[in-house]
Amino acid sequence: MNLKWVARETAKTVQNYLTYQAVRIAIDQLNETNPGLAIWLRQHSANNNFQDAEAYIEGLLLANKELGLRIMTVREELAQTALDFLTERVRSSIHEANIEHRRHLLERMTQSAPPTSSPPAESSHPELDLNEPTDRSID
Amino acid sequence: MNLKWVARETAKTVQNYLTYQAVRIAIDQLNETNPGLAIWLRQHSANNNFQDAEAYIEGLLLANKELGLRIMTVREELAQTALDFLTERVRSSIHEANIEHRRHLLERMTQSAPPTSSPPAESSHPELDLNEPTDRSID
Repeated sequence: MNLKWVARETAKTVQNYLTYQAVRIAIDQLNETNPGLAIWLRQHSANNNFQDAEAYIEGLLLANKELGLRIMTVREELAQTALDFLTERVRSSIHEANIEHRRHLLERMTQSAPPTSSPPAESSHPELDLNEPTDRSID
Repeated sequence: MNLKWVARETAKTVQNYLTYQAVRIAIDQLNETNPGLAIWLRQHSANNNFQDAEAYIEGLLLANKELGLRIMTVREELAQTALDFLTERVRSSIHEANIEHRRHLLERMTQSAPPTSSPPAESSHPELDLNEPTDRSID
C-alpha cells in the first residue's frame, strides 16, 4: 500500500470536508442575517458533493466574491480550531470500533455454537455505536 | 459554530475514508491472489458510499467474516501509519490554497480595472493547484 498517497488523499478529504462545513456554517449564519443570500448559497451549493473543494471555491469566487472569501476564512478558522488531536481521535476511534466489531462477531459465533459447549454469557454491550450517516449534500 | 461537533464529525469522516481506502487496498491485493473474491468484494461494496463505515463493516462481517476482519486490520494499520502530521498537513494546505485563491482573485480584479490605473502585472502563478475529484465509489 502506498502510504504517502493515502496520507495526501486523507488530508485532501479533510480539506474538502472542512470546506463543506464552512458552507453549512455560512448558510446557518446567513439564515439569521440575510435569508435571501442564504437561499442563494444553498442553491448554488446544492449539486456540489465537495469532493473538489478548490473548484467549488473558485466557482463561488466568480459568482459571489464576498461569499467565497467568507467560506475561505471560515474553513481556515475551522482548520486552526477544530483539528487538534485529530490523528489520535481517529486512531482510538478505529481501534475501539474494531474491538466492538470483534466482540459482536464473537457473540454471534458463540450463540450459534452448541449450547452445551458455550460458556456463560459475559456481560457485554452488543449494541454497536454505529456512526450516523454523514450527508455531504447541502439541502 | 460548534467546534466540538465539527471535530467529532471530521474524525468520523477520516474513519470512513480510511475504511474506504482499506477496501480498495484489499480489492487490489485480491486481484492478484483471488480474482473471484476481488470481484465479489467490489460488487458487495459498489453501492456503498462509505458515509457509515461501521454499518458497512458490520454487514461485511455477516457476509464474509474473513474479509470483514481483513478490512478492519488494514484500516487500523492505515490509521497507525498514514496519519502522522495530518492536522499540520490540512492546516498548511488550506492556508496555501486560500493564498492561491486570493492571488487569483486579485489578478482578475486587476485585469478588469482600467488599464491606465493598473499597476504592472506581477510575476505570479495563475494556475490553481486544483484537487482532483475524490471518487469514493468502488467501481
